[in-house]
Amino acid sequence: MSAPRTPKVLYGGDYNPEQWTPDVWEVDYAAFDQARIDTLTLGVFTWSLLQPDEQTYDFTALDAAVERAVAGGRKIVLATATGAMPPWLGHQYPEVNRVDFEGRRHTYGQRHNHCPSSPVFQRLSAALADRIAERYTGTPGLVAWHVGNEYGGPDGSCYCENCAAAYREWLMERYGSLDALNEAWNTTFWSHRYTDVAQIQVPNALSEHWKGPHHTAFQGNTLDYRRFMSEALLANYRAEKMRIRAHDPHTPVTTNFMGAFRPLDYHRWSEELDFASWDNYPPGRDQHVRMAFTHDLMRGLKGGEPFWVMEQTPTMTASRGVNPVKRPGVLGLWSWQGIAHGADAMLYFQMRASRGACEKFHGAVLDHAGRTDSRPFREIASLGEQLEQLGEAVIGARTPAKVALIFDWDNWWTTEITDGLNRNVSYLATVLRYYGAVWAAGADVDVVPMTADLTGYDVVLAPLLHLLKDDVAERLHAVAARGGTVVTSFWAGRVDESTNAYPMDAPGPLAPTFGIRVEEIDSAEPGVTNPVTLTLDAGPVVSPADQVMELIVPAGAEIVGTYGSDFYTGTPAVTRHRVGEGAGWYIGAGLDESGLGAIVRQILGGYDLVGPYAGRLEHAVRERDVDGRVVRTHFLLNHGGEPVEVTAHLGGTDLLSGTQIAAGQSLRFEPTDVLVLREA
Amino acid sequence: MSAPRTPKVLYGGDYNPEQWTPDVWEVDYAAFDQARIDTLTLGVFTWSLLQPDEQTYDFTALDAAVERAVAGGRKIVLATATGAMPPWLGHQYPEVNRVDFEGRRHTYGQRHNHCPSSPVFQRLSAALADRIAERYTGTPGLVAWHVGNEYGGPDGSCYCENCAAAYREWLMERYGSLDALNEAWNTTFWSHRYTDVAQIQVPNALSEHWKGPHHTAFQGNTLDYRRFMSEALLANYRAEKMRIRAHDPHTPVTTNFMGAFRPLDYHRWSEELDFASWDNYPPGRDQHVRMAFTHDLMRGLKGGEPFWVMEQTPTMTASRGVNPVKRPGVLGLWSWQGIAHGADAMLYFQMRASRGACEKFHGAVLDHAGRTDSRPFREIASLGEQLEQLGEAVIGARTPAKVALIFDWDNWWTTEITDGLNRNVSYLATVLRYYGAVWAAGADVDVVPMTADLTGYDVVLAPLLHLLKDDVAERLHAVAARGGTVVTSFWAGRVDESTNAYPMDAPGPLAPTFGIRVEEIDSAEPGVTNPVTLTLDAGPVVSPADQVMELIVPAGAEIVGTYGSDFYTGTPAVTRHRVGEGAGWYIGAGLDESGLGAIVRQILGGYDLVGPYAGRLEHAVRERDVDGRVVRTHFLLNHGGEPVEVTAHLGGTDLLSGTQIAAGQSLRFEPTDVLVLREA
Amino acid sequence: MSAPRTPKVLYGGDYNPEQWTPDVWEVDYAAFDQARIDTLTLGVFTWSLLQPDEQTYDFTALDAAVERAVAGGRKIVLATATGAMPPWLGHQYPEVNRVDFEGRRHTYGQRHNHCPSSPVFQRLSAALADRIAERYTGTPGLVAWHVGNEYGGPDGSCYCENCAAAYREWLMERYGSLDALNEAWNTTFWSHRYTDVAQIQVPNALSEHWKGPHHTAFQGNTLDYRRFMSEALLANYRAEKMRIRAHDPHTPVTTNFMGAFRPLDYHRWSEELDFASWDNYPPGRDQHVRMAFTHDLMRGLKGGEPFWVMEQTPTMTASRGVNPVKRPGVLGLWSWQGIAHGADAMLYFQMRASRGACEKFHGAVLDHAGRTDSRPFREIASLGEQLEQLGEAVIGARTPAKVALIFDWDNWWTTEITDGLNRNVSYLATVLRYYGAVWAAGADVDVVPMTADLTGYDVVLAPLLHLLKDDVAERLHAVAARGGTVVTSFWAGRVDESTNAYPMDAPGPLAPTFGIRVEEIDSAEPGVTNPVTLTLDAGPVVSPADQVMELIVPAGAEIVGTYGSDFYTGTPAVTRHRVGEGAGWYIGAGLDESGLGAIVRQILGGYDLVGPYAGRLEHAVRERDVDGRVVRTHFLLNHGGEPVEVTAHLGGTDLLSGTQIAAGQSLRFEPTDVLVLREA
Repeated sequence: MSAPRTPKVLYGGDYNPEQWTPDVWEVDYAAFDQARIDTLTLGVFTWSLLQPDEQTYDFTALDAAVERAVAGGRKIVLATATGAMPPWLGHQYPEVNRVDFEGRRHTYGQRHNHCPSSPVFQRLSAALADRIAERYTGTPGLVAWHVGNEYGGPDGSCYCENCAAAYREWLMERYGSLDALNEAWNTTFWSHRYTDVAQIQVPNALSEHWKGPHHTAFQGNTLDYRRFMSEALLANYRAEKMRIRAHDPHTPVTTNFMGAFRPLDYHRWSEELDFASWDNYPPGRDQHVRMAFTHDLMRGLKGGEPFWVMEQTPTMTASRGVNPVKRPGVLGLWSWQGIAHGADAMLYFQMRASRGACEKFHGAVLDHAGRTDSRPFREIASLGEQLEQLGEAVIGARTPAKVALIFDWDNWWTTEITDGLNRNVSYLATVLRYYGAVWAAGADVDVVPMTADLTGYDVVLAPLLHLLKDDVAERLHAVAARGGTVVTSFWAGRVDESTNAYPMDAPGPLAPTFGIRVEEIDSAEPGVTNPVTLTLDAGPVVSPADQVMELIVPAGAEIVGTYGSDFYTGTPAVTRHRVGEGAGWYIGAGLDESGLGAIVRQILGGYDLVGPYAGRLEHAVRERDVDGRVVRTHFLLNHGGEPVEVTAHLGGTDLLSGTQIAAGQSLRFEPTDVLVLREA
Repeated sequence: MSAPRTPKVLYGGDYNPEQWTPDVWEVDYAAFDQARIDTLTLGVFTWSLLQPDEQTYDFTALDAAVERAVAGGRKIVLATATGAMPPWLGHQYPEVNRVDFEGRRHTYGQRHNHCPSSPVFQRLSAALADRIAERYTGTPGLVAWHVGNEYGGPDGSCYCENCAAAYREWLMERYGSLDALNEAWNTTFWSHRYTDVAQIQVPNALSEHWKGPHHTAFQGNTLDYRRFMSEALLANYRAEKMRIRAHDPHTPVTTNFMGAFRPLDYHRWSEELDFASWDNYPPGRDQHVRMAFTHDLMRGLKGGEPFWVMEQTPTMTASRGVNPVKRPGVLGLWSWQGIAHGADAMLYFQMRASRGACEKFHGAVLDHAGRTDSRPFREIASLGEQLEQLGEAVIGARTPAKVALIFDWDNWWTTEITDGLNRNVSYLATVLRYYGAVWAAGADVDVVPMTADLTGYDVVLAPLLHLLKDDVAERLHAVAARGGTVVTSFWAGRVDESTNAYPMDAPGPLAPTFGIRVEEIDSAEPGVTNPVTLTLDAGPVVSPADQVMELIVPAGAEIVGTYGSDFYTGTPAVTRHRVGEGAGWYIGAGLDESGLGAIVRQILGGYDLVGPYAGRLEHAVRERDVDGRVVRTHFLLNHGGEPVEVTAHLGGTDLLSGTQIAAGQSLRFEPTDVLVLREA
Repeated sequence: MSAPRTPKVLYGGDYNPEQWTPDVWEVDYAAFDQARIDTLTLGVFTWSLLQPDEQTYDFTALDAAVERAVAGGRKIVLATATGAMPPWLGHQYPEVNRVDFEGRRHTYGQRHNHCPSSPVFQRLSAALADRIAERYTGTPGLVAWHVGNEYGGPDGSCYCENCAAAYREWLMERYGSLDALNEAWNTTFWSHRYTDVAQIQVPNALSEHWKGPHHTAFQGNTLDYRRFMSEALLANYRAEKMRIRAHDPHTPVTTNFMGAFRPLDYHRWSEELDFASWDNYPPGRDQHVRMAFTHDLMRGLKGGEPFWVMEQTPTMTASRGVNPVKRPGVLGLWSWQGIAHGADAMLYFQMRASRGACEKFHGAVLDHAGRTDSRPFREIASLGEQLEQLGEAVIGARTPAKVALIFDWDNWWTTEITDGLNRNVSYLATVLRYYGAVWAAGADVDVVPMTADLTGYDVVLAPLLHLLKDDVAERLHAVAARGGTVVTSFWAGRVDESTNAYPMDAPGPLAPTFGIRVEEIDSAEPGVTNPVTLTLDAGPVVSPADQVMELIVPAGAEIVGTYGSDFYTGTPAVTRHRVGEGAGWYIGAGLDESGLGAIVRQILGGYDLVGPYAGRLEHAVRERDVDGRVVRTHFLLNHGGEPVEVTAHLGGTDLLSGTQIAAGQSLRFEPTDVLVLREA
């Protein structure tokens, strides 16, 4: 199953009519018409209304909301209402509330804070999903089921006794024996050899941790707890999904992800989703590269299938310390970026601003006065018009990427709980440097799991591939052997799936691909850089490297870059190793944008993958089969603050205006301008 | 009842003779004589001495202290000794110790940390007050009762089960029904609809809060808990006061406030105090504007009646990270500032430095060596001499302010727990910007509650009037309608008393007064400013605005200031709306001192309220009726680091030197110089 | 008993063969041979292996490790294996886990975290030590017993009920009566008078503290708890040592200290150690002055007897945020510095890098690949060769210091929990400023406790001698009276052993020695300095003083330095008081390196104590009696980044090369170069 093949990009979002009286609903629907809003997500936070106590279900409120939506001819995304628990549940069954990292049992409050191992929560959440699915299966316009909400927020973990017990079972299933676990966690170090599974403590501030969640005495325990917790929450999702499936075998089921969200391993979750969807709340301005990356990551969850943007704010967020409004044009620009990277729905949180509580100033299609003549509403309506104009042009279309970037939650978790190297290295920030280099070169990229089939790619980037799983070393080697190029970075090939160091030279099992060994890992304090001189086809580049400088001994590889300072001046920082027709690049230092950019351009250039607008506009492609013919749609977006003039690299139809564009024609993009070009 | 009409400004402060042997007392009293110290506050921390266990009272120590003071002819301020609990109480009854925001029951320690809802604390504190009142009523020289000490410190909250139960009762009394509460808190949002009052949790780190006390999922709950907690502590005070009144119907009762202290709503407290008193510990150097504001706030608690400075340090504090000594002259300057703003007593913490514990290096009239020949003591004695010289000149005198500034604890609490706007906006700092503009213009100001009678004022400033109560919108409108000017700022008129947004354009009910609507609220990161050009009578002023920029649509108002950058360049930032003979100014951006100063000067100028020494010296006036004639005393103070020369704006008597000053006479003020001028 | 008189400086360190299979051991021993590693510390973290449950002991693993070491002819340092508890212990007996400062009972995890007052821990740790001592006493090559590991880490405190009970007993023993305790803690302040010892709470976040461990309402309670806790852990050590002594009366017993480690009063611990040993992990680069100080502090623990460096890292640490590798030559340089200051053993943590857990990237003699051709290993082997070359030359030799610096844990604890002055003053940083001035002048220094015999010293530095104990005032006075010089600083002589202020002018009992009184203590915010002009024999020096500026009134002393700014411009900041033939210097301000350096040079110059290489190289001397003749060995070390040329101040033998050096001969030191010169 995949995302529904709808006649157009769905447009709308979260709607909570239960917060208002029906007279307000009529005002709302009139505005929806004005803005071409065709899709409403209903019921996300209605548990306390639908089930006022354990014995009573009352669907009056949801019935009314659904009926009005059906009457209005809207598509409906229906929630299972388990995104937040009702007060009676937390009060009557304290076990449903989490015990936090500090070991404190919480009382009732906020949302997304149930204990995933609570039998009571498991029973009652599944029962509610069952009732809802039973009642609303077959509702006209129902396009998707929305299970829970933003699982794992805010930090995704419970440390209670129920979780501890479930964790111990999970461990025994994973390792088979205590001996195997002792070996995997290297418990002989610091006298931690367990003689009974009951001795194992959940890794938190009261046991293995100090200075917070990132400092642990036993990485093995902490990493396994992250895996367990991600799976425990997934089991909650799966239980609800099964109840839906029992009633409705056809409508796709999803839950809204949070992009590059550390607590959950979305790669493990994705197989349980019929399609991926996510909430796009970039943490600041000028986040287009990060957003591009996240769209590609989300698309990669289901093997390149289209995903949905389930939430974005039409104006401002409520969660940041400072919440500026979206500048004119930015709403359209960012929405089109999502579609360019594979989104088949563009939905908002929320339709109407709540009167009270913590999100009352979160942006909404309709503000507290319900204005439809404001700048934000005009932009919302204008986008609605454009989407109607676009129609079904890209529904179901895929991204023809020849470049892959490996992203891996195990590595995210592991690199950031590792002592002895450099605590300032951020997994996400490092990966984004590599992603950004490809983005700047204008190539389409698939962000894929470590287990992905790599046979279709010319270039595979695997930054911070510290922990190796499965046969990734062999698959990377194969890419190079058949003429492709693979790139990895410092810290690669250091530890196995249990975070135990390989008893060999780094980069461990990757060594054959890269033809080097790493003798020492030097780390630099913030602000300290080492100038790395790169000898590239286009000439020399000096890139100031920060954070990490590895001392490399070539064993077959040629030297591409050398350090310019410190006691290892002149020794290799970057190498390239010939493997068959291809190559393995090892980037042993924290190169900056200039260095990474130049390297990536050279590599991509070798496969004719540098985009026609590289460095000027974002360019993304979606293609689909229409009657046996591949139809390509190009998206050009100007994220910069200045106008950009380019020459069209090919001719086609401007899908938003309907005009024809000829190859070689001069095109001018004002800031936030977007062109959707159907290739002729 | 009001502050006692004493023959002079009282001078002295906290004295703890129980910490020393009587031979030391004689040394102390000799020094008191030398410094003209006439008033001693006794007994503040003596509970453990007066009641060594639940069954035993022993007044030996307090008797001796009181007797010595009476023998020495001192005025006595007598404490109820409940400022800190004795160890046996916390040990025997753990319930008297607070449960903190993190949900942890504290053991015994520190001070000001009783649970206000503890029946045991309520019973025993009232009993002690009763015994003390019974015993010491009628003591010669007794001028005031001092209940407890600095209520609410350090953060004023307990979150125990007793408090939770009392809170639930308080809620039901406030709202009448769960439905009303659900409506007020907008609980439908995030599925929080309560079906039983027992489900309501106190809002802390274990329930609705994250990232500390300022981030809450439900503002309604958190704001109500602040109100409840302030009232719960007030009930403790009231219980002790009632016991005093049972024995002594005449002597005024007070407790020492802490100025602009967030945890307690002093406006609600003030009706229970016979006069206001406060402890003046400015948090740094160059705090004269803040201190002026705080004196005015304290004076405003009792409708303009004189207040007391119950504590200040003669030299250095003990509570800051870095504790510099007060520079020469500063003690006198700051003390006179207090008197200028309405203080009828100027008291110190403390008479003699404790030998041990956390305040042993806190400044004292007598240091550990008991020196009377040190610089600090000389300044103390010199001030004592001046106060004797001043005599009764200003006792009972009031401030003839024509400007009012509205200060409101509900708004303080609300604006700082609100998501979605700008978390860097501080209520107090914003109010101080407005206050500072008036202060710089040299006008007397009353700082008043939102419920104050505004009919006597020409100008009313209401910055950050985010939450509206009662008929404040009507009263503000009336000020303008009769020819006055009212000023408000960004975020005004947004929410009702329950913090629910008004379902209308901002500034909600204030709109008729200001003639605008606000379409968007933009927020800026720290360091980012937008230059606002103001067109004022005195010419244009460009003021860099920070933090908040509202996008304003005039609806009757004229434009006074416009933005100079960003996509709203040229749109209104400041407006003025004619209302009857008067006007309503809306300041939609975080103007700096230059912009606010110029606006306020123009407004005050319209009512001839700009002071004669504006921008040069602080100038404050107190007036009182003497035999049917209004006698005015002017205070001129040089807070700057340079000498200032001015021309006397009127003639009179220099009350400290006895010399005559003629109008137009040139006056020179060295740094820290003060002139007390009785208007001829 | 003292450190063993070995035939050479011992070389080796922690070895954990239980983490690998015997085939790896053979690789290891071959490498040890190559690096001349002769000493292995065994068994530190083996409790869980040696005692898999309460009833079972199993020495198989340790037997094998010991047998292999014996077979390899190594010296053995044998641990009692109580450095980390086994999981079953924490699980079966929760009382063995600590309750932290926040009042939370921890579960099992990490290490060094037992509750010292737990009867179960006391019983089982002593039993294990007993078994080990019984089994391995007499093992060939056994040179020392190693009890526990790094006692007191990470923060050294438990706050459980067992500790509270033990603390109350300890208090009653210390004070004899509650009255005496009330007096010592000044409990009358803030109504804390205890009427039953059971009322006393341990001082933590739930009782007397706020803002963490450094802010307490009652310094007396907090200081006593630090003393108690240090002694409670010492009792754990002592119990194990007694069990060892029962079996082995001859082999010396030690535990590894952590240098300038705040939680434990090593002066009180040292009498229970047969010799001192410590783990040298400097917290950054360029730490040679701090390391020199710490070596001298460790040497001072046992009256100048040689100590061991029990641990240092051969390459990088694992505990810092950023962990750079040691630069070439630094390992040798720092190792030789240790020997120069009195170390008779130079040991590493660790022989082979662990595969997993938090120290897997901590430096090791053998990395994960077991390489012996890497730069780090080559440097390790080279140092091994040099130590073999050195042989027994300095074993047992002592440092002929004529300068003493008083270091005192009570003052460390007290100054950093004191309110009212300047919280930015760090005891250690301040002491290091004084130490650094002597180090720069090239004089040998003994860092001694406050109780030390001072009769052998020409110069005694006593910075931050805030709290006075015993007869230190008299002993310091005697130093001056017989012609020596004593130096103290701001805050000196303020409080007695209970931290109660002396009821007299500061510096209290020290006044006769310094001939001044301090009238005020001014404190400055970070970044603010006051230029102090010093009039010295070599001419005037202007030193910017920070943090503290005391206002001094001379009473016999002459003025050496005066302030250059603020209201006390021109008043004394530094004074010198003649006492008999000697003098007392009072340094009332936070002078910088230039000022302190000039003062110290002048003072040392008066005793001909300025070293021949002052300001160019580090120079340290060790001397010993060889057949009745004093033989001196000089160590010259270049810690700088540039080459240094000096002239030999005397002739002798270069012990590492065997060549002769003549007095006056020119010597060139490249960065990290070391010369070990046996004086002719």
